[in-house]
Amino acid sequence: MTNTTITDTGTAAAGGTAEAGRIAVYAAPAPRAPLERTTVPRRALGARDILIDVRYAGICHSDIHQVGDDWAPGIFPMVPGHEIAGVVAEVGPEVSRWSVGDRVGVGCFVDSCRECDNCRAGLQQYCTGEGGVVFTYNARGRDGAPTYGGYARQLVVDEQYALRIPDALALDTAAPLLCAGITLYSPLTHWGAGPGRKVAVVGLGGLGHLGVKIARAKGAEVTVLSRSLRKREDGLRLGAHDYRATSDPATFTELAGRFDLVVNTVSAGLDLSAYVGLLRTGGTMVQLGAPDGPVGVNAHALLTGRRSLAGSMIGGLPETQEMLDFCAEHGIGAEIELIRADRINEAYERVLRGDVRYRFVIDASTI
Amino acid sequence: MTNTTITDTGTAAAGGTAEAGRIAVYAAPAPRAPLERTTVPRRALGARDILIDVRYAGICHSDIHQVGDDWAPGIFPMVPGHEIAGVVAEVGPEVSRWSVGDRVGVGCFVDSCRECDNCRAGLQQYCTGEGGVVFTYNARGRDGAPTYGGYARQLVVDEQYALRIPDALALDTAAPLLCAGITLYSPLTHWGAGPGRKVAVVGLGGLGHLGVKIARAKGAEVTVLSRSLRKREDGLRLGAHDYRATSDPATFTELAGRFDLVVNTVSAGLDLSAYVGLLRTGGTMVQLGAPDGPVGVNAHALLTGRRSLAGSMIGGLPETQEMLDFCAEHGIGAEIELIRADRINEAYERVLRGDVRYRFVIDASTI
Repeated sequence: MTNTTITDTGTAAAGGTAEAGRIAVYAAPAPRAPLERTTVPRRALGARDILIDVRYAGICHSDIHQVGDDWAPGIFPMVPGHEIAGVVAEVGPEVSRWSVGDRVGVGCFVDSCRECDNCRAGLQQYCTGEGGVVFTYNARGRDGAPTYGGYARQLVVDEQYALRIPDALALDTAAPLLCAGITLYSPLTHWGAGPGRKVAVVGLGGLGHLGVKIARAKGAEVTVLSRSLRKREDGLRLGAHDYRATSDPATFTELAGRFDLVVNTVSAGLDLSAYVGLLRTGGTMVQLGAPDGPVGVNAHALLTGRRSLAGSMIGGLPETQEMLDFCAEHGIGAEIELIRADRINEAYERVLRGDVRYRFVIDASTI
Repeated sequence: MTNTTITDTGTAAAGGTAEAGRIAVYAAPAPRAPLERTTVPRRALGARDILIDVRYAGICHSDIHQVGDDWAPGIFPMVPGHEIAGVVAEVGPEVSRWSVGDRVGVGCFVDSCRECDNCRAGLQQYCTGEGGVVFTYNARGRDGAPTYGGYARQLVVDEQYALRIPDALALDTAAPLLCAGITLYSPLTHWGAGPGRKVAVVGLGGLGHLGVKIARAKGAEVTVLSRSLRKREDGLRLGAHDYRATSDPATFTELAGRFDLVVNTVSAGLDLSAYVGLLRTGGTMVQLGAPDGPVGVNAHALLTGRRSLAGSMIGGLPETQEMLDFCAEHGIGAEIELIRADRINEAYERVLRGDVRYRFVIDASTI
C-alpha cells in the first residue's frame, strides 16, 4: 500500500491505475488475523469505471478460507467480499450502461481478458486469456494493484463487470445472489433442472438454500440431502419436496438411481461414490466446492450408468444477470441475518460452526 | 453342469431352458486355470432363439480379468468371449428377424428385462430391471442357467440380441467391433466427436485403435496419448492427426485445455487430474474401464472449466447396429491377429504384456 491522503470522493479522468483516496473497509491485516476497520487505497475512476456506494455485502464461506490462507498465500491486508449490492454514486465519462442511482451488484470477479473464446461466450469466470479472470479481492488487476472486496463503503469497478439488481429485489437479500445464487443457478440451468427432472441439493447452507429455491422455481422436483433432519422444516418451507438424512444409510438405498442431477454444496468429507449411486442413467453430480487434494469416485459407478462427475464455478456476466432477473421474477432472495460490521469476526466463527440460517450480510453503513 | 448326451444339432420346439446337446468350447475349468477344449450344455432352441455357427471370437482384456476372478467370483467352467461373429444356422419357429445364412454378431449381453426405461430407450446395457442385463458369459440367464460365451463352435441366443453384420465387413475383423468397437463408438457419439471437435484417445490398444478409426471417420481431430511413441507410425496410419507420449511432461503443458473429449481406454494407474487438465472448458473425460477402488480427480480442475469425468459402458442394441453400419460404410474393422484356439492361453499372456496389434481373434473352426 502506498501512503496517500485520505479523501472520500476524489476521482481522476484518465486511467484506472491512479489512486483517488482511500476507502473505509474491514480487512484482515494478516493471515488468520481478525478483521478490523481500516482504509485501503481506492483507484481513480477510469473512463469506463463506476463508483458504487456499497450497501450490503454477504459473507461467503470462501472469505474465511482466503483470510485463513487455506488455499494459497493471500494478499494482505485483505478486504473480503464478493457478494456486493449497492448503488451507483458516480460514473466515468465514457460509461454508457449506468447512471447515478442505479442499483447494481458485483460478484466474484471484476475483470477478465475479454478476448478469449470463453470471454466472448460470456463465460468470463473461465477466462483462459493472459492472467485469466481477476477476482474481486485477493487478486491483482491488470495494472498489478491488489483488488479489494465488498466489506467496504465503496467500490470502483469497470462498468461491464457490474450487474443490474432489479427493483423487485431488496438489496440486502440480493447480495448473496451474486456468488451463492449464481453458483447454484448456473449448474441447475446448464444441466437442465426443470419440469420432469429430479434434483438433489446436498447440504442446506448458504449455497444449498438458494439451490432449493431456484431448482423449485425452475420446476424441478427437489430433494435436500443433509446430514441430519435438523433443518427439515426449513428445507420444505424453502421449496423442497423431500428432505433426507445422509446419516441414515437407508437414504442411499431408497433413493438409488433416482436423480437426474445432484448438486453438491459440501466441499469435503463426502463419499462421492455413494452420491453417484443416487444418479439415474445419464445423470450428473456437480461439485461446487473443491476440497484440498483429489476427490475419489468409483469409476464403476460412472460406467454402469453413463454418469458424470462434473464441476461448476459461479457463472458468467450474462448468466448472472439472467439469474438476477429470474430471482426477481420468482421472488427469490437469500435468507439472511443482517449484521453490523463489528460482528464480522463473530459471524466467521458462527459460519464455521454452521450456525447461520442461511447467510450473514454486512450492513455496509456500519463500516 | 448336468450330464447329457452329446449331440451337435438337437433342437427343441418349446422353451429355452431345456438342454439340447453340448457345444465344443474353450473354457477355463477354474479361476486362473488355463483354458482347455471341452463341452458345455447348449440350451434348446426357443421359439424366438437363433442358433449361430460361431466363426470368430475376439479376445477382450476383460476375458482375462474374468477368468482370473479379478472382479468377482466367477462361474466355472467359464467360456469367455463377447466379440462374436458368425452365421445363423437355425431359427426358432417364431423368429422373424433372421434367416439361415444371415451374418450376425453378438456382443457383451444376451438378455435384459426389456421393460425398464433404459431397455425401452435401447440402452439395454444399463438395464435397471429385475436382474439387470444378462452378460454373454459368466452370468446367469433369467432361467438361472449359466451363460457361455463365444469361444465356442455354436451359440444359442434370443433373436433380439443379435446384430446384423453388413456384407461389407469381414467377419473376422468385425468380431472385435461387438465389444471394443461399440465401447468407443458410443461415447464418441454421445459426447459429439465430429467436425471441429478435438478428441484424444488415451492408449492405443484393442479399444484405442478402434477409437482412432471411428473418431477420425466421424470427422474429429484425433490425438493419441500413449505412454511412449513406440506405436506412433501405427497411430498415424490408423488416422490420428497427432500422437504424443504421456511419459513426456511437456505433453501435458503443451496440450493443456485443448480437447473437447478425452476417451480413456486405460483402466488403471493414470493421474486423471493431469488428463482433465487437457480438457477445454466444458470438456469431458470418459472412463471406459474401471480400476479396482476409487479413482482420484482434482475437483478444482473440474470446477475451473465446467469439466466432467464420466463413464461409459459398451452400447445398447440400436447403437451397436448403428456402429456396425457406420463401420461398414467407412471400411472400419479391427486390426487383428487371427489365432487357432489352442493358442488362446499364449494369447492371454501376450495381451497381458501388451504384445498384440491390436486384437487377437480366435478362428472358431479350430475349437
